Amino acid sequence: MTRAILVTVPCLLLAGASSEPALHVNGDRLRDLLVSLSRFGANPEGGVSRLGFSKEDQAARGWLMERMREAGLDVWVDAAANIHGRRPGGDGSRPMLLFGSHIDSVPKGGNFDGDVGTLGALEVMLALRDEKAATRHPLEMVVWSNEEGVHYGKGLFGSRAAARGPDAGELEDKDEQGVALAEWLRRYGVNPARIAEARLDPRSVAAYLELHIEQGPYLDRRGVQIGVVEGIVGIDRYHVAVQGFANHAGTTPMDERKDALVAAARLVQAVREEVMAKPGRQVGNVGWMQVSPGAPNVVPGLVRLPVELRDLRREVIDEMAARIRARGETIARETAVTVTMERYSTDEPAPTDAALRDLIEAEARGAGYTTMRMPSGAGHDAQSLGRAGIPIGMIFVPSKGGISHSPQERTEWDDCARGAEVLYRTLRALDRR
Amino acid sequence: MTRAILVTVPCLLLAGASSEPALHVNGDRLRDLLVSLSRFGANPEGGVSRLGFSKEDQAARGWLMERMREAGLDVWVDAAANIHGRRPGGDGSRPMLLFGSHIDSVPKGGNFDGDVGTLGALEVMLALRDEKAATRHPLEMVVWSNEEGVHYGKGLFGSRAAARGPDAGELEDKDEQGVALAEWLRRYGVNPARIAEARLDPRSVAAYLELHIEQGPYLDRRGVQIGVVEGIVGIDRYHVAVQGFANHAGTTPMDERKDALVAAARLVQAVREEVMAKPGRQVGNVGWMQVSPGAPNVVPGLVRLPVELRDLRREVIDEMAARIRARGETIARETAVTVTMERYSTDEPAPTDAALRDLIEAEARGAGYTTMRMPSGAGHDAQSLGRAGIPIGMIFVPSKGGISHSPQERTEWDDCARGAEVLYRTLRALDRR
Repeated sequence: MTRAILVTVPCLLLAGASSEPALHVNGDRLRDLLVSLSRFGANPEGGVSRLGFSKEDQAARGWLMERMREAGLDVWVDAAANIHGRRPGGDGSRPMLLFGSHIDSVPKGGNFDGDVGTLGALEVMLALRDEKAATRHPLEMVVWSNEEGVHYGKGLFGSRAAARGPDAGELEDKDEQGVALAEWLRRYGVNPARIAEARLDPRSVAAYLELHIEQGPYLDRRGVQIGVVEGIVGIDRYHVAVQGFANHAGTTPMDERKDALVAAARLVQAVREEVMAKPGRQVGNVGWMQVSPGAPNVVPGLVRLPVELRDLRREVIDEMAARIRARGETIARETAVTVTMERYSTDEPAPTDAALRDLIEAEARGAGYTTMRMPSGAGHDAQSLGRAGIPIGMIFVPSKGGISHSPQERTEWDDCARGAEVLYRTLRALDRR
Repeated sequence: MTRAILVTVPCLLLAGASSEPALHVNGDRLRDLLVSLSRFGANPEGGVSRLGFSKEDQAARGWLMERMREAGLDVWVDAAANIHGRRPGGDGSRPMLLFGSHIDSVPKGGNFDGDVGTLGALEVMLALRDEKAATRHPLEMVVWSNEEGVHYGKGLFGSRAAARGPDAGELEDKDEQGVALAEWLRRYGVNPARIAEARLDPRSVAAYLELHIEQGPYLDRRGVQIGVVEGIVGIDRYHVAVQGFANHAGTTPMDERKDALVAAARLVQAVREEVMAKPGRQVGNVGWMQVSPGAPNVVPGLVRLPVELRDLRREVIDEMAARIRARGETIARETAVTVTMERYSTDEPAPTDAALRDLIEAEARGAGYTTMRMPSGAGHDAQSLGRAGIPIGMIFVPSKGGISHSPQERTEWDDCARGAEVLYRTLRALDRR
């Protein structure tokens, strides 16, 4: 037994080494950067709480800007608190190649979400510096502010501000301490009155690339190294109200009840069934339920619940919603309740650019990596830029067990390096086009 | 059309008059008493808020004791604040015939729950006075304190104290204003230290009768005038916890979810199906649901819900619970969650006395009324006495639309009078035995 192991292990190592050519990026340096960033907002149980617009985030940004300056970049912060780091191109007439991600986290988040893409972008800049590489396009890395949007309930602040400006009144939104978003911008050293100057001219950007962890299980389960993102799913959310009739749970016969919870339970099943009725990666969720009046001895009279539907194709979302609505009508008829279903929020799907998808895939394969095409079920800053008409491309690396937004979130160091390498190669290929 | 109506109406009146013999009780006087009592705690929208142990209840009790004294009764209040009104019997060796109900209400309650049985008892006493009737047994009407138990969360205070004593520590329970139950007893003019003296010796009671509104729809829907109660149902309550795994609702594929809400929804269906699987009047309810973590974009990881089961037969309750438990295990297996189900409260069924049921039925039919046998799905003071070994009988009168604990609660004046008449006749028959 012992001899067999001694023979097998070197073979495996050799196989790995032979199929993947040397990297342009430095995986060890990227790992050290990720470990260093993990100190800011670190939690005792592992992972970080580094919310957008917080002291921990502010300290991490200071550290990161130092590292960006060391990489030889021209660093500045725009009026939406996005950090930019620019490397000039040889041809002044060419639009820039923009790439980056974010470093803020959810409460009790992990050390990879956002960080891998941000520090992967920095590692690309460091590799180019080391090579003394010259590019025709200007290259710019960007660190978007407040992607998670925990304090203010709205995500993608920095990228939305850059792509189309903040929502009306958004700068006056208060966090749970009563601090307005505008005040946080001032604390971050920028002038919220000049927020319009954070807007990007779409014509100034040839392409936006974002490297990110998958946050889902597809790559890990299938043992695939690089995900080529087909787009960021659209998200529709509905308020559903099921109105029955509250009554005494002891004296009301079973066949005379108008039990809103029994009807709502059927609807929860129906959501799952209708979402899964056709093949595809569309998803649907009922995340909570509010039952009134809410006593063990009272037949429920009213149930409220949210239905969330996601897919890459608008028509798939609409079709699921229509089928769920029809099921709601059937349930209402059969159980003597009323069911109303009202959309309260909608995010349009943001497809990635077809040419960028092909290029990412070709460059990943050129590096010897296995790839698969997949949607992004989670939202990303890239979608803000995509909706503004900028061609976007996204590169995913595997999340162990599909776990994210958790201290257990993990991506192998080698996978982080592979993702940065694909980013490097894609940028160089774009620059040659 | 007009002529037809003129002909029809007198016929109907005649039919009613011919089938029902003259009453011993006075329906008009009973109606006036009910209207007078409705002033105490009256709400602008109709109905009353006259909670047990409140100023409104205290004022109503004062008015009622005056009326009881006018009826020639010997009136006193025991140490549990129950009001007694006694009429001596001819044979000093005979145990008393006890009858009554309560006059406290739920918040925003109606004008019939408790009141009909209490003032029906008083009307019986007034009728006996008017007749100068002599009975062999002593007759005693009783007004139980705090039947609804709104302030302290436990119902049937007065009857429980009389039947077996209050629960350990119950007198020190505080209401939402921080007032101990013992302090309310003092405000009602009794000494809580002497609570043991409120105990009834079961041998001193030949029978306890209670007239009450049905609070359910059976009599009204079927057009039956008198319900002969077979017993007060037992009530078991279970805490159910469905444990799945919380995850990102955008990135977790449908077939890899451990969605606690989808599983809980199946369990809600299963409760209804198993309760209805066999014929009978057993009922089951899931009155609320708590979903964690509870965000539209998070797959539910944990759901808690209560299951309440009621029936007149202990074995039916146990069998329903066993079948629901088995369904929970199947659901757990099929949906990769765990389901736990733990009983946290139990009230044993309290059957009425078979001889009293027969007697009530015979007397009601003798008065020309239609009757049906039925369980009481709601709790009543009678159950406290039944559990102490006292023979109990209950008379139900119809609730319009089955509505109760609501300002819309209503029982026709004629039905109130019919109920009091059955109480009168049953007491007289018992006295002749």
